[in-house]
Amino acid sequence: MTQDAWSLARQVSVALPHSRYSIYVGSELLSSLSVGLEAAGLPPGPVAIVTDSSVAGHYEKRLREALEGRGYTVATSCVLKPGEATKSLQTLSELFDAFAQAGLDRSAPILALGGGVVGDVAGFAAATFKRGLPLVQIPTTLLAQVDSAVGGKVAVNHPSGKNLIGAFHQPGLVVADVATLRTLPAGERIAGLAEVMKYGVLCDEPFFEWIDENAEALRTGEDAATIHAVVRSCEIKAEVVADDERDLGRRAILNLGHTVGHAIENRLGYGGIRHGEAVAIGMVVAARIAASIGAADEKVAERIREVATRLGLPTAVPKDIDPEELVVSVRQDKKILAGRLRFILPTRIGEVVIRDDIKEDQILEACR
Amino acid sequence: MTQDAWSLARQVSVALPHSRYSIYVGSELLSSLSVGLEAAGLPPGPVAIVTDSSVAGHYEKRLREALEGRGYTVATSCVLKPGEATKSLQTLSELFDAFAQAGLDRSAPILALGGGVVGDVAGFAAATFKRGLPLVQIPTTLLAQVDSAVGGKVAVNHPSGKNLIGAFHQPGLVVADVATLRTLPAGERIAGLAEVMKYGVLCDEPFFEWIDENAEALRTGEDAATIHAVVRSCEIKAEVVADDERDLGRRAILNLGHTVGHAIENRLGYGGIRHGEAVAIGMVVAARIAASIGAADEKVAERIREVATRLGLPTAVPKDIDPEELVVSVRQDKKILAGRLRFILPTRIGEVVIRDDIKEDQILEACR
Repeated sequence: MTQDAWSLARQVSVALPHSRYSIYVGSELLSSLSVGLEAAGLPPGPVAIVTDSSVAGHYEKRLREALEGRGYTVATSCVLKPGEATKSLQTLSELFDAFAQAGLDRSAPILALGGGVVGDVAGFAAATFKRGLPLVQIPTTLLAQVDSAVGGKVAVNHPSGKNLIGAFHQPGLVVADVATLRTLPAGERIAGLAEVMKYGVLCDEPFFEWIDENAEALRTGEDAATIHAVVRSCEIKAEVVADDERDLGRRAILNLGHTVGHAIENRLGYGGIRHGEAVAIGMVVAARIAASIGAADEKVAERIREVATRLGLPTAVPKDIDPEELVVSVRQDKKILAGRLRFILPTRIGEVVIRDDIKEDQILEACR
Repeated sequence: MTQDAWSLARQVSVALPHSRYSIYVGSELLSSLSVGLEAAGLPPGPVAIVTDSSVAGHYEKRLREALEGRGYTVATSCVLKPGEATKSLQTLSELFDAFAQAGLDRSAPILALGGGVVGDVAGFAAATFKRGLPLVQIPTTLLAQVDSAVGGKVAVNHPSGKNLIGAFHQPGLVVADVATLRTLPAGERIAGLAEVMKYGVLCDEPFFEWIDENAEALRTGEDAATIHAVVRSCEIKAEVVADDERDLGRRAILNLGHTVGHAIENRLGYGGIRHGEAVAIGMVVAARIAASIGAADEKVAERIREVATRLGLPTAVPKDIDPEELVVSVRQDKKILAGRLRFILPTRIGEVVIRDDIKEDQILEACR
């Protein structure tokens, strides 16, 4: 039965200039993870699990049993505190201690079981311990399945900036098991749909239309619809990343909705709004800016707003945020990044442009 | 005059599968570093200097003036404490603070001015800050010029092991200015000659003979001889690294003399013996082991001993180390590395084999 889950799993290949790996998307894959590990060239031997305490209770034991029944040894299992504060040099230091204590050598895979925080910090530890161990991403949130687990960006935060310390470390294998989303609060899953929608807006109008038609199934988390959404999202992200692994050009389009989205997150503080929710609002704002400068028809913003609403996502800047202060946050974000203020703007559903010439009053108008 | 220094500099190209860079070797290159930076595609803009307090007094001001006179801005200059203890996560954290404070973006090169410790820690900071900034290695010790600054290995230490946390981050440029060796204690420079000799033993008998013939000039630090020694060492290391950038195979030969060498360093504690001195002894021991198992003629060990002595290097295990305890250290080193005990053995001058089957009593006999 569990072996069957793998034979039914859909496979997305990520072909980078110097490496390649597969993303398996399916249901109930965790209980027979060894199938995926062996297919990825990671034969039985010691492994380390990194997870957090909110995920561990649901899946750590199952994963451990699945591995140990197939000849793998869990040399260490590191259970982190959930939450963004875990993405720190301090956590890294603790992971290094655990890896060293467990005597991991350069062939031992690190299994990152959890959401984006776990994937980022475990991934960076895998990138740097003994100059690099194999990394297996097992994302258990929709956001991580369609975004952070794919593409090789790993990082921790620094007091002066999110993801300021990191690496590009491609996983050897990604396993997106949609069954793990059942233990995710519905609001978290829905927030992840904003990133799914983003891929449609970026470069796939038929996918955007499919999301619209399947909004109800996606909102309620039906397996078949969710699997298709994850597969198509991963295919699009893989294609963009293959073009620009080191984030020097085209990869910037993945930031659609993120400029204003980040500013909203900053205004409300960590935990004040979910990342995906802020991105949904950011996409609507970006589409409004596009319309205001004549780069897109006004219907584009309207379509994004309609579909986002159908998915259960917010589309307007929260009332308790002063638009003028939001623009200040956008500007500060720009200063921190020491770069120019860059907007990704949809010109129609399925196409975007990168613009560096957006004025603050245009942002302000679109936020209102 | 200083521009001339660059036109006279010798250039070694390092061609890796996915990147390439140049090593410039010459005298008085520091005062016109901008020539090298521009040639390496690093045009005027902000840079960060990382150095240590023993080097800063001699060269930091000169470097800063050379850069600022040519349109570069020294956004921050980080002066570390000299010594191995500086290769820590704590130092990294301080460097990240300084880089963030200075607002460095992904195009700002990190200039590592100093010996191996500075190169390793500054290199790892450059590898990971904003997922990677350009790195310029400006090694000021002979050991760093012929070894650590070339090849892209960067790391910090962890309580359970040297260089346990690191990355492969190839420099964009390496500048080996032999004029900086004049402020180096003679003993440090001579210790570096052990690594130079190592390259001859590894794969270049004519170079080994040249070292023998020029031992006096090398021992006293004459520029012309030193430049040739650095160039040929870098060429050989570059060739080995190009073959095996990620240290999965052939690069292991660079550890000739290091198995017993590390054990000697461990027995005597940090500062008890110079790394190069321990490596010189280790090479003689390796050659004796090779003779004892019939892999080499006894004359090989004798030639290594002769040339090392001529360079002013020690060739016998220090009398205050009990050979049996030394073998225990070799074994412990092996345990820490979670690998098999691996010896690089010279079969003749200019050729080595990798052997995993050396018995402890054979090591003991060779150490006596």
